[in-house]
Amino acid sequence: MRFTSEQRLDDGVLEREFTLGEIPGILWTPGSASASAPAPLILLGHPGGLNKMYPRLVGRARHSAAEGFASATIELPGGGDRPRSAAAEQARADLRRALEAGEPVSEDIVDRLVLPLVEKAVPEWQTTLDALLSLPEIGGPIGYSGGVIAIGVRLAVVEPRVAAAVLFAGSFVPRVMFEEARQVTIPLHVLLQWDDEGNDRQLALDLFDAFGSKEKTLNANMGGHTGVPQFAGEAAARFFTRHLS
Amino acid sequence: MRFTSEQRLDDGVLEREFTLGEIPGILWTPGSASASAPAPLILLGHPGGLNKMYPRLVGRARHSAAEGFASATIELPGGGDRPRSAAAEQARADLRRALEAGEPVSEDIVDRLVLPLVEKAVPEWQTTLDALLSLPEIGGPIGYSGGVIAIGVRLAVVEPRVAAAVLFAGSFVPRVMFEEARQVTIPLHVLLQWDDEGNDRQLALDLFDAFGSKEKTLNANMGGHTGVPQFAGEAAARFFTRHLS
Repeated sequence: MRFTSEQRLDDGVLEREFTLGEIPGILWTPGSASASAPAPLILLGHPGGLNKMYPRLVGRARHSAAEGFASATIELPGGGDRPRSAAAEQARADLRRALEAGEPVSEDIVDRLVLPLVEKAVPEWQTTLDALLSLPEIGGPIGYSGGVIAIGVRLAVVEPRVAAAVLFAGSFVPRVMFEEARQVTIPLHVLLQWDDEGNDRQLALDLFDAFGSKEKTLNANMGGHTGVPQFAGEAAARFFTRHLS
Repeated sequence: MRFTSEQRLDDGVLEREFTLGEIPGILWTPGSASASAPAPLILLGHPGGLNKMYPRLVGRARHSAAEGFASATIELPGGGDRPRSAAAEQARADLRRALEAGEPVSEDIVDRLVLPLVEKAVPEWQTTLDALLSLPEIGGPIGYSGGVIAIGVRLAVVEPRVAAAVLFAGSFVPRVMFEEARQVTIPLHVLLQWDDEGNDRQLALDLFDAFGSKEKTLNANMGGHTGVPQFAGEAAARFFTRHLS
């Protein structure tokens, strides 16, 4: 991991851009984080396109820093300036075509779109975790927060260092991943935007039902895909405070 | 309204039993409540049987008092020592028989069980509200909290003094009340115990969908009918703090 820039935000949060091989990422640590008091870490998921997502990501990171948490994110495979795969581009084009035609999105399209992304992204998150945990100012436990929800599900199953997750039910989930959802046992806080037109509400409810976790909360609100109310963000933050502090 | 007993709880909360005509009830006011700083009021709904419900009700009332809220509850028609109606007893017996036989509970049974209860209980809550608001230590705004959910729905529609409601989706709702749900516009926080065997989860989700409120949150958790997690109770309390303070 190589840090490429560093700036101190006005609330004392240290923001550092890094690259991990070809993967760009950002790490935010609270002003209070030090080698003697390493901060728990929240991995910030997003739909890809770090630059576009930056304003919302830094907002979430600053909020978490106020609770004493470090946050980190990396660009998704095929996101931002990272190389695109022809298969993923084809799946994305097929998805766009289906949506524009008002057709239901077939399971085949979802599988082709999401499964390769999960296969590639999860090991990258794990490598990132290795690198971040080698820093003295970062400690455990680890949380995952956000979308792509299928990436969060896979991480929750295969990565024992992830102790709790806030999952944003706002993206397509391959049906085959329901089996994996049953294997999730960590505490979950699932955010669902009830009237998110681009999201399959019933599928999100089925997925919530499938999770094997003894503690799982579904927090559904109004306001569309990007309109998560402030109080719902605060409830998600409290979930992490409960489980990672 | 006639107060019949009065005691100061160890946290300073004043607990007063009262009768309003034939209806017994309990009022809890925070130690800080006074004529100069009247407390907002939360109406505590329950499934009937004040004595049996007392431990849970006083717990909710003390929690609310710590936030500066007064709380009040009354016995339901046919609950506790209040006179039972033959029709309600018949409906209850039919319900029991259906449940013991493992049969689905028919809409007819639900209608006979819940609709007359709503018809009787809601005006009683309104009369109680008149009486409570005449006390100098009680002010507005008013919240309704709990079950029977159909009573909460009706109150939210017909009683403009109720400004926000926490509804507990744990009891039967007549299908005809879905039209009323669409007329609800106040902020709602709906608690659903996801694996509550005695509750129709799909009906609860449909009801949540039907509510006309621009701000509505569904907070679903594990733990069975009576196992609402402490953090979910706290989230409901924060909802009232947001809307009644």
